[in-house]
Amino acid sequence: MNLVVVGTLAFDSIETPYDRRERILGGSATYFAHAARYFGAVGLVGVVGKDFPRGAMEDFRDRNIDTRGVEELEGKSFFWAGRYEADWNTRHTLDTQLNVFSNFDPKLPQGYREASFLFLANAEPAVQLRSLEQVRSPDLVVADTMNLWIDSKRGDLEGLLRRVHGLVLNDEEARMLSGRRNLFQAARAILDLGPRFLVLKKGEHGAFLLGEDLRFALPAYPVEEVVDPTGAGDAFAGGFMGSLASAGSVDAATLRRAMLYGTVTASFCVEGFGVERLANLDRARVETRFQELKQFTTP
Amino acid sequence: MNLVVVGTLAFDSIETPYDRRERILGGSATYFAHAARYFGAVGLVGVVGKDFPRGAMEDFRDRNIDTRGVEELEGKSFFWAGRYEADWNTRHTLDTQLNVFSNFDPKLPQGYREASFLFLANAEPAVQLRSLEQVRSPDLVVADTMNLWIDSKRGDLEGLLRRVHGLVLNDEEARMLSGRRNLFQAARAILDLGPRFLVLKKGEHGAFLLGEDLRFALPAYPVEEVVDPTGAGDAFAGGFMGSLASAGSVDAATLRRAMLYGTVTASFCVEGFGVERLANLDRARVETRFQELKQFTTP
Repeated sequence: MNLVVVGTLAFDSIETPYDRRERILGGSATYFAHAARYFGAVGLVGVVGKDFPRGAMEDFRDRNIDTRGVEELEGKSFFWAGRYEADWNTRHTLDTQLNVFSNFDPKLPQGYREASFLFLANAEPAVQLRSLEQVRSPDLVVADTMNLWIDSKRGDLEGLLRRVHGLVLNDEEARMLSGRRNLFQAARAILDLGPRFLVLKKGEHGAFLLGEDLRFALPAYPVEEVVDPTGAGDAFAGGFMGSLASAGSVDAATLRRAMLYGTVTASFCVEGFGVERLANLDRARVETRFQELKQFTTP
Repeated sequence: MNLVVVGTLAFDSIETPYDRRERILGGSATYFAHAARYFGAVGLVGVVGKDFPRGAMEDFRDRNIDTRGVEELEGKSFFWAGRYEADWNTRHTLDTQLNVFSNFDPKLPQGYREASFLFLANAEPAVQLRSLEQVRSPDLVVADTMNLWIDSKRGDLEGLLRRVHGLVLNDEEARMLSGRRNLFQAARAILDLGPRFLVLKKGEHGAFLLGEDLRFALPAYPVEEVVDPTGAGDAFAGGFMGSLASAGSVDAATLRRAMLYGTVTASFCVEGFGVERLANLDRARVETRFQELKQFTTP
């Protein structure tokens, strides 16, 4: 398994200004895998409860997503409920039930331990570190995080940052982690903590890739109708890591292309509830939108 | 005079979270001209009171900015006072005194009436139209506007939109003018009102160029230290129009390059109070930052 993701498999209940869905398939690893699989096989590491539908597991396997790393425990799967306001940028969490995820102890199957590309979706930094330690000699480890861990597990997070090559975070998290308001100053302060590069996500305003010799800004793909923004960040990470794993390289040009692929998979993600749109594409459609985005952004 | 701008010449009092200035030189035409002049001569049309400093007029003329179109009237010059919050995106207007600008009746000197490129900075649409009617056969007329006119002078504004080639506005104005939240849907609705293209400004998040066969997104230049955002939109317009006028063309490739030049002049503008930084560059520094921006955004 060349590419592995460790994250959540969940049920989400989502309200948007226009519609709602109850208990649909969600979770960071779900979104990541459904985006990354257009570029090659993905190994999934996570935990589900007894309520997790067999159909969803079959959907994964039908799509080149390996589920040997998914553990089933007694109890219920992770559950999240949220509501978006009309500007899409304001999201209210209505409910979070960790359930089996509160006992998550990632165990990577033997076949995953030689992975070259590893994505650590948002989780407690100590759990992310335990996953990382099971992969023998990865070429590229990228982690996501969130305000909760920046606030409450800063020491663990800094320990993790010394071990990863890349960090994906949004603009507010970057400001919080660095204590700097200006994003470019914030990025420099975070790079000093260890990572070689950052992907700074700004939602509808696109993303930056910033590293020692890297400075790249990319607008979002011009989506005409947002249906549900849930999972866009993880779908971005999936396209980003999937395209890198498939190229087998992490040079500057490949990283720039990966930013475009991540933007493309994120754009498909927000065009449907949950993974309903993201999961049902083919590589040609991903490629067409990649070319459109390139045309849209080439100066 | 190949390029003409009609707009305000003003005094501004500005408070930022870090510093403040009293009654410094401002106004839309001032910012526009100080940005556009790096690309060639600019003709200035506006009105000032008896209090307007002769030194400022000399500064214009020293910089290839023609002031024959500036009328001096009895009374005081336009005055604006505002305060920015720490996020830079929230601006409070503390005072607006139109003074001589309330009687502004633009009169273009003979030498300006053959202009090929005309920029109508934000003003009452009827005043913008009176300026436009004095230019014999311009190749490109671009107008700016604001929420006040969208709200209170919609009929006049729609009349103007049928006569201009391009419209510059920010995302909130685009939503207000079109009644659509999605920016791409908003843009299409506005293009139906007449203009061939729109420049949608999103401040620190860059700008879009949208037209019938045009779709181009450009991030802002990564400014490390914002000092004063006042005038950034007009400085953008100055770089945009100046580079077009100097190229003498409005094809898609030239318009894309003009977006970069506008972004560059806007970025210099926000690095100082008023025009203190924008007015004191040279073409080589503009060109260096243009290349940096191109590098920063090329996918």
